[in-house]
Amino acid sequence: MKRSITLALLLLLIVGVLAGCGRKKEATPEAVSPEAGLPASAMEIASSRGLSPEDINAALKTYMPSGKWDEYIMFASGGHSGQVLAIGLPSMRILKNIAVFTPEAWQGYGFGAKDIEEMLDAGNVDGRKIRMGDTHHPALSETEGDYDGQFLFINDKANARTAVIDLRDFETKQILKDPNIISNHGSTFVTPNTEYVIQGTQYATPLGWEYAPISEYQEKYRGVITLWKFDRDKGRLDPEQSFSIEVPPYWQDLCDAGKLVSNGWAFCNSINTEMATGGIEKGNPPFEAGVSQRDMDYLHIFNWQRAEEAYKAGKTEEINGMPVIRMDTAVAEGILYFAPEPKSPHGVDVTPDGKYIVAAGKLDPQVTIYSMEKIEKAIADQNWEPDPFGLPVLNFDAVNHAQVELGLGPLHTQFDNQGFAYTSLFLDSAIAKWKVGGDNPEDWVLVEKLPVQYNVGHIAAAEGDTVDPDGTYLVALNKWAVDRFAPVGPLLPQNLQLLDLTGDKLQVIYDMAMGVGEPHYAQIIKADKIQAWNTYPEVGWDPIAQAPSPYATKPGEEKIVRDGNNVEIFMTSVRSHLTPEHVEIKEGDHVTWHITNIETAHDATHGFQLGGYNISLSIEPGETVSFEIDADKSGTYAFYCTEFCSALHLEMMGYLLVEP
Amino acid sequence: MKRSITLALLLLLIVGVLAGCGRKKEATPEAVSPEAGLPASAMEIASSRGLSPEDINAALKTYMPSGKWDEYIMFASGGHSGQVLAIGLPSMRILKNIAVFTPEAWQGYGFGAKDIEEMLDAGNVDGRKIRMGDTHHPALSETEGDYDGQFLFINDKANARTAVIDLRDFETKQILKDPNIISNHGSTFVTPNTEYVIQGTQYATPLGWEYAPISEYQEKYRGVITLWKFDRDKGRLDPEQSFSIEVPPYWQDLCDAGKLVSNGWAFCNSINTEMATGGIEKGNPPFEAGVSQRDMDYLHIFNWQRAEEAYKAGKTEEINGMPVIRMDTAVAEGILYFAPEPKSPHGVDVTPDGKYIVAAGKLDPQVTIYSMEKIEKAIADQNWEPDPFGLPVLNFDAVNHAQVELGLGPLHTQFDNQGFAYTSLFLDSAIAKWKVGGDNPEDWVLVEKLPVQYNVGHIAAAEGDTVDPDGTYLVALNKWAVDRFAPVGPLLPQNLQLLDLTGDKLQVIYDMAMGVGEPHYAQIIKADKIQAWNTYPEVGWDPIAQAPSPYATKPGEEKIVRDGNNVEIFMTSVRSHLTPEHVEIKEGDHVTWHITNIETAHDATHGFQLGGYNISLSIEPGETVSFEIDADKSGTYAFYCTEFCSALHLEMMGYLLVEP
Repeated sequence: MKRSITLALLLLLIVGVLAGCGRKKEATPEAVSPEAGLPASAMEIASSRGLSPEDINAALKTYMPSGKWDEYIMFASGGHSGQVLAIGLPSMRILKNIAVFTPEAWQGYGFGAKDIEEMLDAGNVDGRKIRMGDTHHPALSETEGDYDGQFLFINDKANARTAVIDLRDFETKQILKDPNIISNHGSTFVTPNTEYVIQGTQYATPLGWEYAPISEYQEKYRGVITLWKFDRDKGRLDPEQSFSIEVPPYWQDLCDAGKLVSNGWAFCNSINTEMATGGIEKGNPPFEAGVSQRDMDYLHIFNWQRAEEAYKAGKTEEINGMPVIRMDTAVAEGILYFAPEPKSPHGVDVTPDGKYIVAAGKLDPQVTIYSMEKIEKAIADQNWEPDPFGLPVLNFDAVNHAQVELGLGPLHTQFDNQGFAYTSLFLDSAIAKWKVGGDNPEDWVLVEKLPVQYNVGHIAAAEGDTVDPDGTYLVALNKWAVDRFAPVGPLLPQNLQLLDLTGDKLQVIYDMAMGVGEPHYAQIIKADKIQAWNTYPEVGWDPIAQAPSPYATKPGEEKIVRDGNNVEIFMTSVRSHLTPEHVEIKEGDHVTWHITNIETAHDATHGFQLGGYNISLSIEPGETVSFEIDADKSGTYAFYCTEFCSALHLEMMGYLLVEP
Repeated sequence: MKRSITLALLLLLIVGVLAGCGRKKEATPEAVSPEAGLPASAMEIASSRGLSPEDINAALKTYMPSGKWDEYIMFASGGHSGQVLAIGLPSMRILKNIAVFTPEAWQGYGFGAKDIEEMLDAGNVDGRKIRMGDTHHPALSETEGDYDGQFLFINDKANARTAVIDLRDFETKQILKDPNIISNHGSTFVTPNTEYVIQGTQYATPLGWEYAPISEYQEKYRGVITLWKFDRDKGRLDPEQSFSIEVPPYWQDLCDAGKLVSNGWAFCNSINTEMATGGIEKGNPPFEAGVSQRDMDYLHIFNWQRAEEAYKAGKTEEINGMPVIRMDTAVAEGILYFAPEPKSPHGVDVTPDGKYIVAAGKLDPQVTIYSMEKIEKAIADQNWEPDPFGLPVLNFDAVNHAQVELGLGPLHTQFDNQGFAYTSLFLDSAIAKWKVGGDNPEDWVLVEKLPVQYNVGHIAAAEGDTVDPDGTYLVALNKWAVDRFAPVGPLLPQNLQLLDLTGDKLQVIYDMAMGVGEPHYAQIIKADKIQAWNTYPEVGWDPIAQAPSPYATKPGEEKIVRDGNNVEIFMTSVRSHLTPEHVEIKEGDHVTWHITNIETAHDATHGFQLGGYNISLSIEPGETVSFEIDADKSGTYAFYCTEFCSALHLEMMGYLLVEP
């Protein structure tokens, strides 16, 4: 029998891991040249797998060799998972599922970490702990109408909340509850320099979701459009500088901010100008029919700069702590106008030059284009009729610039850098490519349609919501998958399909099963715009405060401090031990426990779980995290590192001993 | 202006969606033939993307054309996410993140659904609500040593729990807490006909995790190996037919069941025969050093069939409700033996023919192979010495068959169908391929080593833990990623690398970022072995009971029933409405709410969220789900369908009106 290695060698190995772990670099593979020809085996492989020439091209376009980085990152909402996904393009790899509204144990989010719990609690409703969400529309922060890669905003439709994610560490930093509404589908959308994050109500209720019978819908139910002020230096939305605009109970839907020539304005759809109130069980038309009766709903056109002036001038009423510009003020100050738009629109999207606004009416086969110039003229001309609330509805023919018939169920539009727009067709299960014309409405024409599988909701183009789209890729977020992937039971993944925009024809080049949530909307940014941290700036960092933690613990300064029944633990973690390893306390103690990961190496994360106490933490290099427990039962518990951090990872543990 | 479509057309569209949604079939693309040659554009694409000939081959091997299904499904634990991932191979797409120990809102898991809450509560500890886990080793159910595609088992290391997932619907059906231990790394592993699911302790505590000072470690701390009896007809582990075997506090690690000639036996490693107790803060060696002092730890060799006989003969002691075979009984009945194995082993793996047992000692550069024949002879010869607990330690030279030097940090071994084994090398960041020899120990030799990026933990081969491995693919679950993917902050995804086993040389053909958890172990099954349901067998199905629900509601039978302050709601969901749409109750009511998805179409899932109440459900076609709320505050709340199910999905909502 050979002798196993000695302790000296073992220590050498540990040092080796500490020094060089994961630092290898492969030699760059030699790239093929057109002259060299494709490898002979490629033909055989393609043939044996039944690949078509199109498949071969698609495979080559989407394949990322080991170690090569994706060119783009797509931030997709996770739908009713309550999270946000960071996905690499063109490989369509999920790089990170970012926990936002729902606890997630791998990231140590919502399982004890004290400041995260406090942040989540800020989103509680009616004193009830809310630990889920329905994320819909992520918005990257912008500078001069272009994604700047600093922050990401995301809404929770189910509870009317908005969250801020810092793209230095891809972690959620803030959750805010709108005090007046319970549902906020039409958010988040940012103004061109991220002055504000726009949020619109979906399902109207009395403000503050107070009780009122549904029979009093028109009198008492309302929506709001909230303008959350963003403080870029602090990386936080500032409720003290935010305000809302009261709007009718029309079920506001998606929004977009103007840019360049339309800067200062913003646009939101609405889908229930019928003010239908449902009640299928009473013989009323169900919502689906009641909401779809009129030929026209109203595009909400509002001037957020004028609204800001009115707010600053105190022309608001405080409702549940939020300053609200009432509808009559909005009329008087020229803040809010409506324009008719074909029934039940979903997406409203401003062209990159800011000149045109495209509304996609999901029950109308065409997209409807408005011109900012015409809107401003119609406003100047007072070319309007009042709605039942006295709000001005601009004359459709005065503001409409063009309509393009695309097919069934147009939902959402994105743009490229060649003067084309792309609209998802939910019922056709297709993407329509069409020409963004100019002054002549006849120049706005359908170019091409490509089938997708199936029932596409939103689409996202590379840098597609900016003043300068890239025109490279587009992702179709298909809501049904049915037969596209190997069966995994009655709950199916969605199919996110990647389209190549650079060829003569549109082409689907990748099918991505989305089995981690149901993304509704996404934005795609050039990966190199994001300046993510590899480790926290210094050892002992509080990621929520983005500042040194008062509980940071240096090696050698670990301690357990008792004050009556209160015990405070200052612990460090490093490959491959936690210090202290014995935490000896007494039954009835209240324990506050701080852990500092004293590592400074990239990727040297330590997880931490404490059996029987529902505690799960992820402590990235440099991070300090705190949690509290009540040791209400005597016993012997194990805590350990949950990240496979070294060869001696399993040995990285300790005992919590609770003496009776 | 063109007229938008009429209501008649709208209804036609709805019917169209209901009838044909997502049912399109694409024409099968024409496959290339070797004669036809590769498309001319492929060369340009490969060149423009800097692809090497190896990259081109890899791209073609892993690319899945739209609509083509993956050949294999890999079930990977999600680590401290507490979940299990179903991943298609060779595309490495995540088909589903299956919620197990941690709530997940997309699947409606742990956000109100009553029977799921009850199942999760069965895993509570000390009366504390546990809603996270640390999943480690998934095990597919087996018939005659081969995966049968029916069930999946998974452990929670952090709380010593075991769960059962039904592969008809890919949902968790049961969570069981071991009443004697608080940590169970070495599980789950099944016997060849899934008679039992094997579970070993990791960190020893007094049984029932009672308090005892760490100074009494040897006397009072213990591990157990639990044999959970599986009732295949019920699809449940049966605690009433399960039992444990007491083992010394040696920190049992991974296990594997014997097969064919070794059927009836099972094998578990241990890593702390030193019985080190840590205490770095007191000047003791930290666990990492204390646990690594001896040159040998003990492979636990136990006969589960003899243990079953002893259990059935009543040779057990009931401890915390679990029958336990005490160590002296295990000795007397010939149930448990030890064999020395080089220090701190991790994986123990039985060869497909059942003849040999391979232990990978992570601090020893070689794998150590035991022969079942030699083990049985040593036992017959009583060729042993007792350990401090009187348990027989077989003579190493009597049971060792061969050793193969592979490199630094061997962890875990898998097999192919060509007589080769593959072992992960954590410290070398490599996969070693070696020859499984026969009677002559000299025939067991290293063949090849391939670098992976980086620090590979477990590996999983296609059908790799069965009597009949496929020899096609192997996945390296690399624990560090560092520089492999575009940066996403201090918490990095892992890198799961797909290896092609069919070529002359091993080759990495795909890098998969794992940003959804930290998988520890995986098993890979042929996808066509799984007979997953597309919809539930009948409308009104309770997925936990796998039987019709007593609360099933048919169309036309929806109702709201009041009994004092108790209100019961029987609701249906169908594209595109919930019935009833108005739920009018009074403040102080206790509400029990049942929803039946009356759809029978594949993929026609409806989600359900109720704002302000932390309720999130996923109601698959045919499913009935129930939840309860206390309407303790008056108000107007919105509930709605969260799955984008039709063009009128946004209109699929209703109001909960709580009158003061």
